Amino acid sequence: MPGTVITAPSGVTAAKGFRAAGVSCGIKAVKSNGGLDLALLVSETPAGAAAVFTTNLAQAAPILVSLEHLKQSGGTARAIVVNSGCANACTGDEGMQVARDMATETARLVNCPVEQVLVASTGVIGVALPIDKVRRGLPAALAALAAEQGWAAARAIMTTDPFPKEAATRVTIDGRDVAIGGMAKGSGMIEPILATMLGFVTTDAAMPQPLLDRALRAAVDDTFNAITVDGECSTNDCVMLLANGASGVEIDDNTYPAFVGGLRDVCRELALGIVRGGEGATKLITVTVTGAATRSDARRAAKAIANSPLVKTAIHGGDPNWGRLIAVAGRAGVAFQLSRAAVVIGSIVLFKDGRPHDEAAPDAAAYLQGKDIDVSVDLGAGQASSTVWTCDLSAEYVRINADYRT
Amino acid sequence: MPGTVITAPSGVTAAKGFRAAGVSCGIKAVKSNGGLDLALLVSETPAGAAAVFTTNLAQAAPILVSLEHLKQSGGTARAIVVNSGCANACTGDEGMQVARDMATETARLVNCPVEQVLVASTGVIGVALPIDKVRRGLPAALAALAAEQGWAAARAIMTTDPFPKEAATRVTIDGRDVAIGGMAKGSGMIEPILATMLGFVTTDAAMPQPLLDRALRAAVDDTFNAITVDGECSTNDCVMLLANGASGVEIDDNTYPAFVGGLRDVCRELALGIVRGGEGATKLITVTVTGAATRSDARRAAKAIANSPLVKTAIHGGDPNWGRLIAVAGRAGVAFQLSRAAVVIGSIVLFKDGRPHDEAAPDAAAYLQGKDIDVSVDLGAGQASSTVWTCDLSAEYVRINADYRT
Repeated sequence: MPGTVITAPSGVTAAKGFRAAGVSCGIKAVKSNGGLDLALLVSETPAGAAAVFTTNLAQAAPILVSLEHLKQSGGTARAIVVNSGCANACTGDEGMQVARDMATETARLVNCPVEQVLVASTGVIGVALPIDKVRRGLPAALAALAAEQGWAAARAIMTTDPFPKEAATRVTIDGRDVAIGGMAKGSGMIEPILATMLGFVTTDAAMPQPLLDRALRAAVDDTFNAITVDGECSTNDCVMLLANGASGVEIDDNTYPAFVGGLRDVCRELALGIVRGGEGATKLITVTVTGAATRSDARRAAKAIANSPLVKTAIHGGDPNWGRLIAVAGRAGVAFQLSRAAVVIGSIVLFKDGRPHDEAAPDAAAYLQGKDIDVSVDLGAGQASSTVWTCDLSAEYVRINADYRT
Repeated sequence: MPGTVITAPSGVTAAKGFRAAGVSCGIKAVKSNGGLDLALLVSETPAGAAAVFTTNLAQAAPILVSLEHLKQSGGTARAIVVNSGCANACTGDEGMQVARDMATETARLVNCPVEQVLVASTGVIGVALPIDKVRRGLPAALAALAAEQGWAAARAIMTTDPFPKEAATRVTIDGRDVAIGGMAKGSGMIEPILATMLGFVTTDAAMPQPLLDRALRAAVDDTFNAITVDGECSTNDCVMLLANGASGVEIDDNTYPAFVGGLRDVCRELALGIVRGGEGATKLITVTVTGAATRSDARRAAKAIANSPLVKTAIHGGDPNWGRLIAVAGRAGVAFQLSRAAVVIGSIVLFKDGRPHDEAAPDAAAYLQGKDIDVSVDLGAGQASSTVWTCDLSAEYVRINADYRT
């Protein structure tokens, strides 16, 4: 792995030539972070832009507008504007107009073509986004823009997140430093009402748009796409990557692996932050599936385990209940051979060669008292493997999601 | 619908020529129902037998033995023996031997070929089933066998179930009465440790084995297969149907629809009982999806909604959070048209023609205070529909599943 991830206040402004701001414009009832609810990220020069968007068919207005702008600009962006507190989803034609107005106003202030502005929103679904508040907040955000304000932007995109998620790394390419940094918000895949998975990553490297796109998809596959809090997929999920070339380094096919390595480190750090900060989470669980017939089988089984309420509650309760892991593997719709399967919690073998090892249960129970839990299931059906991350399921998750709006 | 469902103590012995018993043999720590943990169901004469089994690839030993016996006997059975407190799953060759011994001992006592005995188990996975206890309990069960002991059998198959599930109906066929009765245990699809979905249905009608098989599959599809508590699928799930012909009525293609109608009524009553008694459940939720491109799409979307922790927690909290329903429909992997979609809670329209109707939210919140909740989502993509049943997700569910073994 090239470079090391440094969780620093810099985050999305760790790379040269990016400035950010986070201000309060009154969309969100002031609950935390001084009510910060409007984030602005600006590149000094037009940056190469790539993004991945939610596969939910009920895509929110800002998703549709950003998709349109990326196409119109040929993958170039100067600014990203994000609000929290309102998802602007399921809001019909009016919602589309609001998302467009948000981009238009930002373009006017930043002085760039409107198609060079990307838009994202997170918060309650089906509620109108008050565009007047955004209009009043934008000049304040413009005035606050600074390389030192990455931390404020990271806080302005938060909803139920218990803490902000920032990460940055440096990769040496052809003897020169390239910075990659980002911010994200959770609290997971959970789409509720007041949570969406958003990620924003910047770099001062430059590269052809197709390579940028490929790098983002490669990094996201093993990071943001390998986490789950509760198996939900938001109407507003997106991860955006801007590359402005301010380092003077141009990435090509030869230096691509080093760049993707760094990008993956940043994305993983942000993605794991989302899981650690999942609603009601008390533990980070790393689920590794081995012995699968195909990589797709491995991922599918790992996701099934990571989303199983019985596995998540057992780990929450510190119960080394390996039978639940086997039962999920058996129903996951993948090749599975019970007589060759195995379950390992931490490094403790609990089931192997068709036989329980219940004598190891007390050790496993002690291990489960920790905060970082590794569970591993061998499907006994091949050589492929996959890792995903999830959190435990607590009564607090129920409380947050049952009580939120009421 | 022919006949009416009467939830009566008779249950599995409502049909002529069946006797049952439920006794305590010491497998289960005495917690409820006087520790009843061994159920025996006997038909006076060899009965036609059909069964559906879990699709989990980690099938438990009793499932494998019952499959084998059904094949060997050509779909004929005299007895079903069931224990609770231990699933005899993931127990290797020893577990297979125990399941076989359970059948052999029952066959000896009932005086029938061993392949005419079906076996089922429910309880902790990966723990050896103490066959000596079963051997000691079986003579007591044989001695207790009576048409009036259906209630005891229904209690002996319970694990975390808050109440026993019995149902019975009468269908008039060619001017003669046919009885159909059954028992089931939950607490849902949940497979934990100490829960499995088991259903046992008897009738005193007779019919050719292929017709019996077809009837069971048809009835199960809209009932036991249309419920979910937490999306889990047990290693031990099964539904068995015995038809002994004691009424003197032979079902043929003409009378098949009337019979299936009655069978479906009994299966639905049992299945809804499982959902009402789901772990931590406080509400029965009927999820109807309309406007789907295909019936399979409708079922898939309905299951996705019924398994969504965000939908289940919102309803638990009485929050008419229609955005969560739309978001699940959008990510369910089925055809979906947001501009034509609709969400109705009770009879209150909350989203239609791409527009929220938030003025109706207070009425919907009041409706959600009830115990029986109907939610309906129109996908706006066609004419097909499907209904499934689920329960809400409460902090009690987490408590039960986090604390069970510890």
